[in-house]
Amino acid sequence: MSLTTLKPSLFIGIVAGLTMLYNRANMSLSTQPYKGARDFYPEDKRIQKYMFGVMRRVAEKFGYEEYDAPILEPLELYAAKSGEEIVNEQTYTFEDRGERKVAIRPEMTPTVSRMVAARRQELAYPVRWYSIPNLWRYERPQRGRLREHWQLNVDVFGIDDITAEHELIVLADTIMQTFGAKRDTYIIRLNSRKLIDAALHDYLKLEKVQAHSLVKLIDRMHKMEAAAFNAQLDATLSPSQREDGTEDKLRELLKVKDVAHLPGELQSHESVVQLTSLMKLLDDSLISNVTFDVSLMRGFDYYTDIVFEVFDTHPENNRSMFGGGRYDGLVGLFGVDPVPTVGFGMGDVTLQNFLETHALLPKLKPETELYVALLGDVYESAQRVIHDLREMGINVAVDASGRKPDKLIKNALKKNVRYMLFIGDKELQTEQFTLKDLQSNTEEAHSLQRIVSVIKDYRAA
Amino acid sequence: MSLTTLKPSLFIGIVAGLTMLYNRANMSLSTQPYKGARDFYPEDKRIQKYMFGVMRRVAEKFGYEEYDAPILEPLELYAAKSGEEIVNEQTYTFEDRGERKVAIRPEMTPTVSRMVAARRQELAYPVRWYSIPNLWRYERPQRGRLREHWQLNVDVFGIDDITAEHELIVLADTIMQTFGAKRDTYIIRLNSRKLIDAALHDYLKLEKVQAHSLVKLIDRMHKMEAAAFNAQLDATLSPSQREDGTEDKLRELLKVKDVAHLPGELQSHESVVQLTSLMKLLDDSLISNVTFDVSLMRGFDYYTDIVFEVFDTHPENNRSMFGGGRYDGLVGLFGVDPVPTVGFGMGDVTLQNFLETHALLPKLKPETELYVALLGDVYESAQRVIHDLREMGINVAVDASGRKPDKLIKNALKKNVRYMLFIGDKELQTEQFTLKDLQSNTEEAHSLQRIVSVIKDYRAA
Repeated sequence: MSLTTLKPSLFIGIVAGLTMLYNRANMSLSTQPYKGARDFYPEDKRIQKYMFGVMRRVAEKFGYEEYDAPILEPLELYAAKSGEEIVNEQTYTFEDRGERKVAIRPEMTPTVSRMVAARRQELAYPVRWYSIPNLWRYERPQRGRLREHWQLNVDVFGIDDITAEHELIVLADTIMQTFGAKRDTYIIRLNSRKLIDAALHDYLKLEKVQAHSLVKLIDRMHKMEAAAFNAQLDATLSPSQREDGTEDKLRELLKVKDVAHLPGELQSHESVVQLTSLMKLLDDSLISNVTFDVSLMRGFDYYTDIVFEVFDTHPENNRSMFGGGRYDGLVGLFGVDPVPTVGFGMGDVTLQNFLETHALLPKLKPETELYVALLGDVYESAQRVIHDLREMGINVAVDASGRKPDKLIKNALKKNVRYMLFIGDKELQTEQFTLKDLQSNTEEAHSLQRIVSVIKDYRAA
Repeated sequence: MSLTTLKPSLFIGIVAGLTMLYNRANMSLSTQPYKGARDFYPEDKRIQKYMFGVMRRVAEKFGYEEYDAPILEPLELYAAKSGEEIVNEQTYTFEDRGERKVAIRPEMTPTVSRMVAARRQELAYPVRWYSIPNLWRYERPQRGRLREHWQLNVDVFGIDDITAEHELIVLADTIMQTFGAKRDTYIIRLNSRKLIDAALHDYLKLEKVQAHSLVKLIDRMHKMEAAAFNAQLDATLSPSQREDGTEDKLRELLKVKDVAHLPGELQSHESVVQLTSLMKLLDDSLISNVTFDVSLMRGFDYYTDIVFEVFDTHPENNRSMFGGGRYDGLVGLFGVDPVPTVGFGMGDVTLQNFLETHALLPKLKPETELYVALLGDVYESAQRVIHDLREMGINVAVDASGRKPDKLIKNALKKNVRYMLFIGDKELQTEQFTLKDLQSNTEEAHSLQRIVSVIKDYRAA
């Protein structure tokens, strides 16, 4: 593998670079990561692994299989080739050394659509896939807003009825429940693009351009002052619309909190029937924190039907956490038959904020279970015991530094390892080892087998 | 989280981009991934997960904890600030929208050194860390040479004697053994930078520039024709060196296969003592496929002491697989006290080639264990059973398509799922379910509990 075999030349480059910098400028390199991005020290990585573990376990319970793809994608996937580049300003893009335009993926949806399209004929539908890709976005970093995050993406391809939406919302809800979230700490909001289309075009008789502006306006409604919203609403509507009752009808519509209270003209629309059926199914699944939200827009141009979003209800973190919906059009853009698709994306930063806000992060144990301190010149003779402990399934860190016991204990405590074993000549001869429990600050002599079972009991606890 | 809340605008961009491309040019988007990079369909991802799982399990057995870092790093980490950019030509670099120079990391070593330096004082040594980062290199893709790979990086910080090298080589060897590799399928080669320095400078009395050229030449020795090597060797040495026995001594030196056969002047050098002790320790650990290789160079400017490399002995894949060594100098470049460090990197492409060449990849089961096919209009009434199966730990994919049984079976077979359950009104009433074993092509009626235990037995098998 070239990345391995070419290592030397790179290493030379790196070391020469670092050394030049150090020697010539006598300046030190910064230890900071790239702006807006995170280093994961083991204690941080442990939290991420816990979160990803729950995501994976639940996704697989629902029959989803993990896939992955390169973090670099051809820019064409996000931009038009027409010369007029409309790729989002926040996307990281560059030209590679072969003058190919490349993007660091900001989302996984175009990628997964590409992958399904590539095997459109061979795949067995429904295709259920998930991934936890790293995504990048260029923006000003602030709390909860970073330049990179990891995002669980769950998509089902090939189901054209609401059983797909039901399954994905139950799956998302099961993730929340598995994290221990209480029902009153989050709300699942539902809406339908088809319903909004019907309301704006058929019910309110708005022009296409007006409807488009209104969707954008309503999308920002909850983040705006009422006066500003009203002013923009007035500006969007024509004088006659403000007088002929259109504006009143719109305002009434935006107050609706229940599909049953939608205007009679919309009640029989297929989207309302679907939303009602979906809510019934979710209720049967004992998911009681579901609400209809006519103002939920979520990338309206993108989705084709039902959309949903999970909101944190905590007063200090009252925000959209994640969401998704049906987007039946993307796979077909690759020149193959379209595939009905429902998916959602759940980011790690938002999720971790939620878990921290609601005190749901468990105390996670370090991977290392036993800190073995060698006493005297026993590195060679202790190898068999260390090997056996590992063979019996214990994660063992060895300290052969020869430091004083109090230093060694301090070290093990700092690493948050609960158990410690001192091994010297005496222990190797008697095959009895003193296991020190740093939590209870007690110690007892045991055989190796007994030590293994004590540690395994703690692991399982 | 911004990446989530800003999704709509991006989605609009994407969909508009895709749609424009599709409508205006009437061309389809390519379904190919970026050149030289891999899509991981579930069957590919499964192999990767298996490999990473073994890596993680073994690394943690040895007391190593997982860390991670952003795939983007400030370019300064790899380049000098002096204006004369010496960053490797194969590194992906670009300027971000804030005019910061950024690199997609080609290696993890500078990153992990940065992270240790950032917490130089707080960390408890020895620090044992591992990571499986995605790395990128711009080069012409060919078999076994891609533009991206994933690489297990294992590093120990704070041990200044050969117990560190011993531990890491045993760890690497344990990974190979856990994959089922036979001892005769790979060789672990050892050398020492200090020994090479002593041999070239003190023993052969070469000039610094000559020594440097020779290191590069010897590094390529096994990839060159003998005649070409000899010609370049002659060109490197002066006429007097060719006549005064220097060349002969060098040629003899390069033939040495055992530290015991090194020239007497080098026998007592500290590096030989260390290599001998290390080989003794490895032999005690029953690692018999270790050999001294005086021609092993491995990024000579980078490493400071012992280096090692694992070679595939298969005639069709006879190549370096991965390696590492001691590099005591990097952490100190960040303006903190240096930390003795030993590490190695093991790439997924090379490893997978090895496992495939030696037929060591096991047949991996899909994540989905049970394919539930619904018969008739039972989507709602079957939810409880589906929920219970998942609660009892089974990974269940539901097919509510209403297709004919033979189509459903074909689908389950295509997904490689072994067990199938048909659920209709009758099954829901009797609470007896027919479990179809697609492998033996038999079926039997069972209670839900019994079905769960059959599947769990298969999982454990």
